[in-house]
Amino acid sequence: MNTFGRIFKLSIFGESHGLQVGVVIDGCPAGIALSEQELEADLARRKSGARGTTPRKEADRPKIVSGVFQGYTTGAPLTVLFENENTRSGDYSRLALQPRPGHADWVAAQKFNGYQDYRGGGHFSGRITLGLVAAGVIAKKVLAGTTIQAKLRQIGGCSDPEGFEAVIEQVMADRDSVGGLVECVVENLPVGCGEPFFDSVESVISHAVFSIPAIKAVEFGAGFAAATLRGSENNDPIIDPSGKTATNHAGGINGGISNGNPIVFRVAVKPTPSISVPQYTLHLEKGEVEELVIQGRHDACVALRVPVVVEAVTAVALADLYLVHRARMS
Amino acid sequence: MNTFGRIFKLSIFGESHGLQVGVVIDGCPAGIALSEQELEADLARRKSGARGTTPRKEADRPKIVSGVFQGYTTGAPLTVLFENENTRSGDYSRLALQPRPGHADWVAAQKFNGYQDYRGGGHFSGRITLGLVAAGVIAKKVLAGTTIQAKLRQIGGCSDPEGFEAVIEQVMADRDSVGGLVECVVENLPVGCGEPFFDSVESVISHAVFSIPAIKAVEFGAGFAAATLRGSENNDPIIDPSGKTATNHAGGINGGISNGNPIVFRVAVKPTPSISVPQYTLHLEKGEVEELVIQGRHDACVALRVPVVVEAVTAVALADLYLVHRARMS
Amino acid sequence: MNTFGRIFKLSIFGESHGLQVGVVIDGCPAGIALSEQELEADLARRKSGARGTTPRKEADRPKIVSGVFQGYTTGAPLTVLFENENTRSGDYSRLALQPRPGHADWVAAQKFNGYQDYRGGGHFSGRITLGLVAAGVIAKKVLAGTTIQAKLRQIGGCSDPEGFEAVIEQVMADRDSVGGLVECVVENLPVGCGEPFFDSVESVISHAVFSIPAIKAVEFGAGFAAATLRGSENNDPIIDPSGKTATNHAGGINGGISNGNPIVFRVAVKPTPSISVPQYTLHLEKGEVEELVIQGRHDACVALRVPVVVEAVTAVALADLYLVHRARMS
Amino acid sequence: MNTFGRIFKLSIFGESHGLQVGVVIDGCPAGIALSEQELEADLARRKSGARGTTPRKEADRPKIVSGVFQGYTTGAPLTVLFENENTRSGDYSRLALQPRPGHADWVAAQKFNGYQDYRGGGHFSGRITLGLVAAGVIAKKVLAGTTIQAKLRQIGGCSDPEGFEAVIEQVMADRDSVGGLVECVVENLPVGCGEPFFDSVESVISHAVFSIPAIKAVEFGAGFAAATLRGSENNDPIIDPSGKTATNHAGGINGGISNGNPIVFRVAVKPTPSISVPQYTLHLEKGEVEELVIQGRHDACVALRVPVVVEAVTAVALADLYLVHRARMS
Repeated sequence: MNTFGRIFKLSIFGESHGLQVGVVIDGCPAGIALSEQELEADLARRKSGARGTTPRKEADRPKIVSGVFQGYTTGAPLTVLFENENTRSGDYSRLALQPRPGHADWVAAQKFNGYQDYRGGGHFSGRITLGLVAAGVIAKKVLAGTTIQAKLRQIGGCSDPEGFEAVIEQVMADRDSVGGLVECVVENLPVGCGEPFFDSVESVISHAVFSIPAIKAVEFGAGFAAATLRGSENNDPIIDPSGKTATNHAGGINGGISNGNPIVFRVAVKPTPSISVPQYTLHLEKGEVEELVIQGRHDACVALRVPVVVEAVTAVALADLYLVHRARMS
Repeated sequence: MNTFGRIFKLSIFGESHGLQVGVVIDGCPAGIALSEQELEADLARRKSGARGTTPRKEADRPKIVSGVFQGYTTGAPLTVLFENENTRSGDYSRLALQPRPGHADWVAAQKFNGYQDYRGGGHFSGRITLGLVAAGVIAKKVLAGTTIQAKLRQIGGCSDPEGFEAVIEQVMADRDSVGGLVECVVENLPVGCGEPFFDSVESVISHAVFSIPAIKAVEFGAGFAAATLRGSENNDPIIDPSGKTATNHAGGINGGISNGNPIVFRVAVKPTPSISVPQYTLHLEKGEVEELVIQGRHDACVALRVPVVVEAVTAVALADLYLVHRARMS
Repeated sequence: MNTFGRIFKLSIFGESHGLQVGVVIDGCPAGIALSEQELEADLARRKSGARGTTPRKEADRPKIVSGVFQGYTTGAPLTVLFENENTRSGDYSRLALQPRPGHADWVAAQKFNGYQDYRGGGHFSGRITLGLVAAGVIAKKVLAGTTIQAKLRQIGGCSDPEGFEAVIEQVMADRDSVGGLVECVVENLPVGCGEPFFDSVESVISHAVFSIPAIKAVEFGAGFAAATLRGSENNDPIIDPSGKTATNHAGGINGGISNGNPIVFRVAVKPTPSISVPQYTLHLEKGEVEELVIQGRHDACVALRVPVVVEAVTAVALADLYLVHRARMS
Repeated sequence: MNTFGRIFKLSIFGESHGLQVGVVIDGCPAGIALSEQELEADLARRKSGARGTTPRKEADRPKIVSGVFQGYTTGAPLTVLFENENTRSGDYSRLALQPRPGHADWVAAQKFNGYQDYRGGGHFSGRITLGLVAAGVIAKKVLAGTTIQAKLRQIGGCSDPEGFEAVIEQVMADRDSVGGLVECVVENLPVGCGEPFFDSVESVISHAVFSIPAIKAVEFGAGFAAATLRGSENNDPIIDPSGKTATNHAGGINGGISNGNPIVFRVAVKPTPSISVPQYTLHLEKGEVEELVIQGRHDACVALRVPVVVEAVTAVALADLYLVHRARMS
């Protein structure tokens, strides 16, 4: 549902064109220095504005309304709110009748009997990830000493960062969109995080990552390549009392538990389904398939904005596993 | 931890060489016909015995000790137990000193301060999946009308089922192991299952799937390929009031919610780390890297036994999402 | 922690003197008619203003910022915010040094290493119950057809409502406070709510009720008197196929499950610890016991404001049990 | 449902006349010395055999089948099983037609559409508390240094332990049953346990305590008496840097958090509804009220067996709160 975590626990809310979006973070340890300003660097990385992202511009100014006192977390629930400013609901009026391919329009109408807020994707909008990014900043502080870095590795199959711009320009010229590949590396996570059988590091990270709209695949370490390898190739010899391994096909995780080596995983970001290329889809009243041309402001390559969100949910997932692990240690 | 689910809820327990392994299933609706015999077909699919699987043989006879009365589920917790019969703990005595590469030996010792049951992987053993398979049979009954089928698609990179045997024979001759690729297809799942933001169908299935030992990657629908596509290629036009789409790049899921089309996903199974090829790893007392040759009984291709486990956890995950969805409908 | 419920799920936040308090309600079915105005009747019942309640006056105007669209719940998380307007933090500056007897000041400082927001009780303030009352209004709508009514039955041991005013006047004249007894009756709850073993109706209601500040006891049906009875006196004969019983010593609950008769329970509300009578308590810096006279605005009889909060948490607890029960029915 | 706890987490199962009852304990720290023998002292306190308890005799021999290795907890789920030996299902055959007053027979049939195991109360039986008592022994070890003691304070309104025997003899002579009052005192619990807003110590203990069959009321500290007191009487002055208070009306809990003073609470145990005095109740097929005389073996005063169960659930609730608190401390 809309909560995540066992100790370090998020509750997320809001719709693309509602009044506010935000997040409540429960279980955060007390005494962590925090200001609204410290949230801004990561929020800026998520922002649109770059070539290939939606021209919808918002201040995305975070407002902490509870849980921080005199510059430190209090241990009580920490709430961060964001106003929705730049909404043009008129753009979306016809969506109620013609569900956009690749979007949640149709399933949301089915699931919620037509009562869903359909404007701009409503609660399914990527805008809801604002709260995730804010929570991620705090989770990173809970994991002091650990670094989490996600980077865009491919756009539309192109692995050369020098070539990203050209891919994007072509996609924009075609009024289309394009997917991408993001890689995340976590360093210096303490050994022992992860609670098998069900709460392996892979389980909890993938659970969090697949909540980001547009993610359709995740692989840890050697990932899909491991399916083609032999044990003698895939095994990582332990070469040091710290647990350091000679190779890292396991992506830093054995038996679902962090082993002290870097946690490495990659996620696939599908192309934004909002495109201005004419498409076909069902017209709900007519019961017939009709052409649809989506107007409005879209991301030609939403993958550009995903790395910081991947970092955020990874931090949230690992902060929780870390606190749970600490609870169980004697 | 060792529970999974919100309404249809598993608790799993046991170790490879302990007395029993099993599962408690809470929240199962009352009135579902069930016998121990009905568990056996899926348990047999998980069993070793085929060429390429471990020669450890066990009866794997399920014993239902609660939750079933006069042939039907009662609504109270349903418990299935399995005796561990064929254990040879002597085989594993040296593992305490020399952690096996690719196994959980070293992380478990760190996490549990050396108190873990290290025999045969203890609680990290694939043997714990017996309870998952039993639960899967029941979950499939909760999802009456829905079919869930997983199949082995590749072994060691070979996609031709005719060639699987040759791959396995070579691997066995080399005393090595090999990974594989499993694909799962879910048909006729009701529209509307999945509880975004955090409990998308992808989130909940991946969470469950990554609890299966040896799984290192999962992709839904077009998966990693979606990262290389354009929106105009990847979008699935809705062509029918039932929600049927012309293509199924989304793998049956939009916005985290089942859309009525088949749910399709693939998982990578790494090669079993237990191999008899000589390896190197740290000797904990000596603090030095030494050769290790693992004796004992192993699966040359554990992927052969994985499809039914993937079906089981998928059924469990979807049964829970289905019951939650039903709870919320008016 | 600060979430409650399995399907119908609250997350609550805020501090007495922070910027805002509020609640996020997840899992609410879609299609329930709701406006901010409809929240106001119950919020007014919780308000101060009556003789015997604190003179702190606030508009307590609820603002729904997500989860409602075109007058109906959407199925997405529903968020209600309240501004804190009338805060006088100066009143509370000395509390950091001298913890008030009967308050959470001292334990909060210990638990949160001094980082807690100590102004006006911070997150421990009764003000946080604003969100509960808002959630209660919505929960009552989920339980359409069921009525939940709580009433103040005693003040300071006086059971005669005609005499309440006199008790309060005397207490105010003495600058003291006084406790009270609240009774709650739930009618027409469907049979079958409650999920033993652990989530009996008594368990879930008591869990919710004890989260209300100042509640120190709860009894269902005959309650403590049942300890003095014989089985032949206490048993309630079933006299009707509807489950109606001749007596209701069980308070409408057998085996933790609603039996169709009225659910009846009583709770004890302790006297507000904030009194202007001189008290003694430890001075943290001096390490000595010193006199403390609490200034500020207090409730002489907070029990006057408790009934609607008891109704609210009862509605929330039962709405969740009802949705869970419905999920499990075939 | 049938799980309880966030970190230290129980899953309970079994029926009165099924094959086995038991408990799975997840989240237990590794390295706690434990043997089956150590469970026996508390299990013996729960046992029948004393005058006034049911003549049903069972060995109640606990079998630990997972989670303990070489005499210590491993950190993996710990499972304790008990065989049901002495079942006489013939005694209960008519219950399916005539629900016993005060029992769960009728509600269970409604909730589970007649599929419940009705023999001996099935899953609603007090026999299920065997697993609670076993879990309690382990929880007490998690809370090393803390003592938890529950005692029977009243039987049928008689507060003089010397007079208990006479009350019981009279009740047995009358083929009736009688209720009782149990008090529990927890000493040396660390300050800071409890996670408001919703997981106050009172909330979590009461949740657990009301899962024990027959409990109908709970009060902490001054409890219901607090409703009659003034603040100046009820407040507990802090007199020492350790948090020690001059009085303990709060029962060791402020703002839902343990304050270092003894936690004191009392619970009401209703008289067992199984009595051999003729009663009246509905006959389901005839749709008429008819006489019912319950044969079988019953507890004249089940309250005699309750103290150790109260201790157990209190230990379980506090062990979990303690681990959660520890997780959040920096």
